[in-house]
Amino acid sequence: MRVARPLRLLRRFATQPGQITVGTAHLDYEVDAHTAVMDITHTFVPPEMRGQGAAKQLCDAAYERARAEHLLVLPSCSYVSDNYAARNPDVHDVTLRSADAPEGLFVGVTWLGVATVRLTDARRRNPLTRAVLNDLRYFLRECASMDPAADLATTQVRAIVVSASGPVFSSGHDFRDFRGATRAEQREIVELCADVNALLGEVPQPTVAAVAGKCVAGGLQLAASCDLVLAREDATFCLPGVKTGGFCHTPAVALGARVAPRHALELALLGDEIDASDAHRIGLANRVIAAREWPAAVDATVARLAQRFGKSMADGKRTFYEQLRQPDVRQRYAVATETMVEMFASEEYQSAMAAFLDRKKG
Amino acid sequence: MRVARPLRLLRRFATQPGQITVGTAHLDYEVDAHTAVMDITHTFVPPEMRGQGAAKQLCDAAYERARAEHLLVLPSCSYVSDNYAARNPDVHDVTLRSADAPEGLFVGVTWLGVATVRLTDARRRNPLTRAVLNDLRYFLRECASMDPAADLATTQVRAIVVSASGPVFSSGHDFRDFRGATRAEQREIVELCADVNALLGEVPQPTVAAVAGKCVAGGLQLAASCDLVLAREDATFCLPGVKTGGFCHTPAVALGARVAPRHALELALLGDEIDASDAHRIGLANRVIAAREWPAAVDATVARLAQRFGKSMADGKRTFYEQLRQPDVRQRYAVATETMVEMFASEEYQSAMAAFLDRKKG
Amino acid sequence: MRVARPLRLLRRFATQPGQITVGTAHLDYEVDAHTAVMDITHTFVPPEMRGQGAAKQLCDAAYERARAEHLLVLPSCSYVSDNYAARNPDVHDVTLRSADAPEGLFVGVTWLGVATVRLTDARRRNPLTRAVLNDLRYFLRECASMDPAADLATTQVRAIVVSASGPVFSSGHDFRDFRGATRAEQREIVELCADVNALLGEVPQPTVAAVAGKCVAGGLQLAASCDLVLAREDATFCLPGVKTGGFCHTPAVALGARVAPRHALELALLGDEIDASDAHRIGLANRVIAAREWPAAVDATVARLAQRFGKSMADGKRTFYEQLRQPDVRQRYAVATETMVEMFASEEYQSAMAAFLDRKKG
Repeated sequence: MRVARPLRLLRRFATQPGQITVGTAHLDYEVDAHTAVMDITHTFVPPEMRGQGAAKQLCDAAYERARAEHLLVLPSCSYVSDNYAARNPDVHDVTLRSADAPEGLFVGVTWLGVATVRLTDARRRNPLTRAVLNDLRYFLRECASMDPAADLATTQVRAIVVSASGPVFSSGHDFRDFRGATRAEQREIVELCADVNALLGEVPQPTVAAVAGKCVAGGLQLAASCDLVLAREDATFCLPGVKTGGFCHTPAVALGARVAPRHALELALLGDEIDASDAHRIGLANRVIAAREWPAAVDATVARLAQRFGKSMADGKRTFYEQLRQPDVRQRYAVATETMVEMFASEEYQSAMAAFLDRKKG
Repeated sequence: MRVARPLRLLRRFATQPGQITVGTAHLDYEVDAHTAVMDITHTFVPPEMRGQGAAKQLCDAAYERARAEHLLVLPSCSYVSDNYAARNPDVHDVTLRSADAPEGLFVGVTWLGVATVRLTDARRRNPLTRAVLNDLRYFLRECASMDPAADLATTQVRAIVVSASGPVFSSGHDFRDFRGATRAEQREIVELCADVNALLGEVPQPTVAAVAGKCVAGGLQLAASCDLVLAREDATFCLPGVKTGGFCHTPAVALGARVAPRHALELALLGDEIDASDAHRIGLANRVIAAREWPAAVDATVARLAQRFGKSMADGKRTFYEQLRQPDVRQRYAVATETMVEMFASEEYQSAMAAFLDRKKG
Repeated sequence: MRVARPLRLLRRFATQPGQITVGTAHLDYEVDAHTAVMDITHTFVPPEMRGQGAAKQLCDAAYERARAEHLLVLPSCSYVSDNYAARNPDVHDVTLRSADAPEGLFVGVTWLGVATVRLTDARRRNPLTRAVLNDLRYFLRECASMDPAADLATTQVRAIVVSASGPVFSSGHDFRDFRGATRAEQREIVELCADVNALLGEVPQPTVAAVAGKCVAGGLQLAASCDLVLAREDATFCLPGVKTGGFCHTPAVALGARVAPRHALELALLGDEIDASDAHRIGLANRVIAAREWPAAVDATVARLAQRFGKSMADGKRTFYEQLRQPDVRQRYAVATETMVEMFASEEYQSAMAAFLDRKKG
C-alpha cells in the first residue's frame, strides 16, 4: 500500500455505475458504497461541443451529487484530476489525491490532506484481520514519517479519520487468524494490533474516530486510541470478552487511558453494552452527533483540523502525551516549556503575534 | 474466621423465629435482620407423612419467603444442605455454603460462590473497628490465595459484594480504637485499614460495593476501593474530616484513584455530602439503582460476575491494575499483550473460538 | 509587594467617591470597581456629637453598603481599623488587613485570612503580563512560607481566591511581553508562568478560582491550577492557540492534570469554546453557580475553607498531591498513612476525639 501517489481502487465490492450527461457530452462514474467513493472514470465531450464549458458543467454536477451523498471523489479521469480539480480549490476537501483499497480497508487522502481510513468488510462486521492491521500499520508509519512543516505539494496527510461502512464499526480481532495459529503467530498479531493502536497516538497528525453503530472489543480499542472520538447518536460500545469466557485485556488498556480507570474496568468486567450518551458521560466519546448531522459534522471537524495542522499542532500533540508520562506537575511543565519557548521564538509565531498586535492598534 | 466450611452464625443480634407448616410437618427458621440471613434450623415430617414430598414442600415455601425478603439461606438443618439444596441448583444463588459472623461483620459464601461481606453493627453506624478490619483482612487474604481456575467443589469465592445493614453504610474508623492508644497501635490500625482496602483491588475476584445510605470517611474509602460501586438512589457520600479539624487523608487516596483527582480533593477540602447522582457523575458510583430495584439488581450483577468468574477474569483484573501502573502506552500494552497471548493460546479459549467459528458456519 | 502589613492601594483606576452622614458627622469612602474595594478614608464626628455612637452608626452603614455590593473594606481610617473592626468580629470577613494593588493585580487579605487575588486590567482582558505573574509569584511564595499552625495574630493567609474584574477572567499571556524579546527572556516568562501555576497547588492554603466570563489560554491554565474551580453560569473556557497557528502547550498541562486527558486534548486541538455546564461535566469546574448567587456563594465557600484551615488541611492538601505521584496504591497509602498517623497522634486530634466520644455518651 502506498499513499504517496494517486491510485485506482485495487479492489471493488458493490460498485454502482452512473452517468451524467449534458447534451451529447457525458461523464461516467462508479460509486462504491463500502468505501463511500465516487470514481470518475471518464469524461467525453464531442468535438462540436468543445470550448463551451460542457466538461466543467459535467464535473460540477458530479461533485454536487458526491457532496449530497457524502462521497469522496476519485478522479481517475485525467481531465478531472489535472484540469478541473487543479483549478477549483473548492473541491479539494472531497477530491482524493491518492487512494488504495486492499482487502477490508480503504485509505484515501484528499487534496486538503484529510486521510480517510475506512473499514470496508461490513458483511463480516469489519474485523481487524491481520491483513487489515498490517495495512493500517503501513499507512500510519508513513504518516509518522511525514514532516508536519511540509506544504501540500506532495500528498501530505494532515488529519486522519477512522470510519467504517455498515452497521458495525468493528467487531475486533478476527478469530480465524488465531485458530490453529502457533503461539508465536498469535503473539505477532496481538503485538501488531497494539502497535497500530499506539501509532494512532504517536503520529503527528490528529486522529479522529468516527463511530457509527456497534463498536466492539478491538473495535472499541481502535476508536479509543484515536485522539478524538466522535460518536453518532446510535453508536454503542462493548467489551464482550467475559461473555465467552475470555477478557478484553488489550482493549481495556486503550479505554483505561481515556476514561476514569474504574469505568474501563466496569465495561471489561460486566461486558455490557453502553450507548453513545453514556460513552459521552464517561469521556469515551468526545462528542455525540445527531444522525441527521452525521457525517457532515465529522467532515467539518476533520477538515478544520487539517486546515490548522502544522508544526505547532504536531508539537502540541506530541508534547501533550509526553508530559502526561511525567509523574509531577513541575516535570510536566519542564516538558511543555521547551515546546512553548520554541514556538514563541519561531519566525512564524513572531510574525503572527506582530500582525495580531498591529491589528489591535489599528 | 474460616470460610472454607459451613458454620452456624456465631453471634446473633435480633433474630426473629418463624415456622412453616404443611399439615403436621414443619420447618423452623430464624431471621437475622442485620445479616439478612434466614437460618433453617430444623425440619420435621411425622412418620405418617413421609415419602409424600412434604419436606420438599416446606423447603420450597421457605426459599420462596427468603427470595421475597432478599435473605440468604443458612441450611443448618442437614436435610436442607445435604438433600434439598444439593438437588436443586436453582437455590444455589441464595444458599450459604459457609458463613461466619464475628462482631460487626457477617461473611457468607453461597453455593454459586458469591461472598457477601456485610457490616452488621447498624446501631453504631457500622464502624470499621480494628476487629472488623482484622476479620475482613483475614477473609480477603483467603480469597487472594484461592485458585481462580478451581471449580466449586470446595467452597470457592468467585465474586465479593460488600454491603451493610441499616441507614449508614459505614461511618469509617472507630475513634474508640484510637483513644488512648499508643502511636504504634494507631499506626497498626491505619496500616491494617490500608491493607484491607488495597486487598479489595488485589484479590482475583471482582469486588462490588453495594452502597445504600450514608457512606462516610473510611466507609467511602471501603466502597471506593472495590472494583465496582453500585449506589442505591438514596446513597450519599462524604469525607467529613475537615469539619472536626482533621482531614480524610487515606480515604482521599482511594477516591483519588477512582475519580478525577480534583473531584476527590473537593470532597476532602469542603467536607460536603454529595448524593448518588453526583457520585455517578464524577465516577465514584458506577451505577445508581432505584430503591425498588434494589437489592435484586445488586444480586443479579454479582451473580453474573460469579458465573463468569475464572482464570480469564482474574487475569483481566490483575492485568488491568498492573498496566495502569505503567507510565507509557507501549509499556501498558507490553503487560496486557502477555496476558492476551496466554489467553488466546489456552486450550479453553481455542475450544471456545472453534465452537464460535463453527456455529457461524452452520 | 508586601502582604504582611496594611497598605493603601498604590494605584487607582476608576474610583467613585462617596459619603455617609449622620447629622453633621460623616464618613468618606472611595469605591474602586476593578478591585471591588471600598476604601474608608476618613470618619469625622463633630465634638458636640461625640460619645453618642455616631461613629459606630457611620461604620455600620458603610459596611452594610459594602456587603450589599460585595465589596471588601479597606480601613484606611485608623478609627475603622483600630476601633470599629477590632471590636466587631462580624465584619472581619470583609475587612482587609492588608492590601496591595500593583499594576493589573490586586491582592488583599481579610482579618479572617481570606486572600483575594484579583486581576484588574479588565480593559485589556486581564492579561497575565510579566509584571502580574511576578507579583503573583511573590505573593504565593509568601503564602508558601507561612506556618499553617500559626494563629491570625499576624496577617495570615488561610485561603486564596483568584478572581477578575470585567467580562473576561483572563486572556492569558500578554503577547507584548514576547514581541522582540530574546529567547532567554521568553523562556523566563514561560517558566515564571509555570512556576506561578505550580505554586497554586503547592501553597499550603486551599486555592479557589472564581471564574466569571471568558477564561482563555493562560487564563484557563491559571484557573485549572487552583485546587477548586467555581464557575459562574456564564463562564466559558477556551484554548484558542490553534486558531492562530499556535498551540496552548502549557495550559494543556494544567487542564490535563485536572480532567480526563483526552478532554484536555480535545480543547487544545479544536480550540472550541465550552460553556460552564460542559466544563462541569468534564471536571474542569467543580461547581457551576447561578449568577444571582454569585459572588455570595464564592465568598461563603472560601470563608468556610479559611475557617477550617490549619495544619490538618495543609497536610491533607500536600499529602493528596504527593500520593498522586506514586504509581501504585500501596505506595500511595504509605504516603497517606504517615500523615494520618501523625494526625491521630496529635494532641489537638486526641482532644477533639475525646470531646466527640464524650458528647456521644452524654
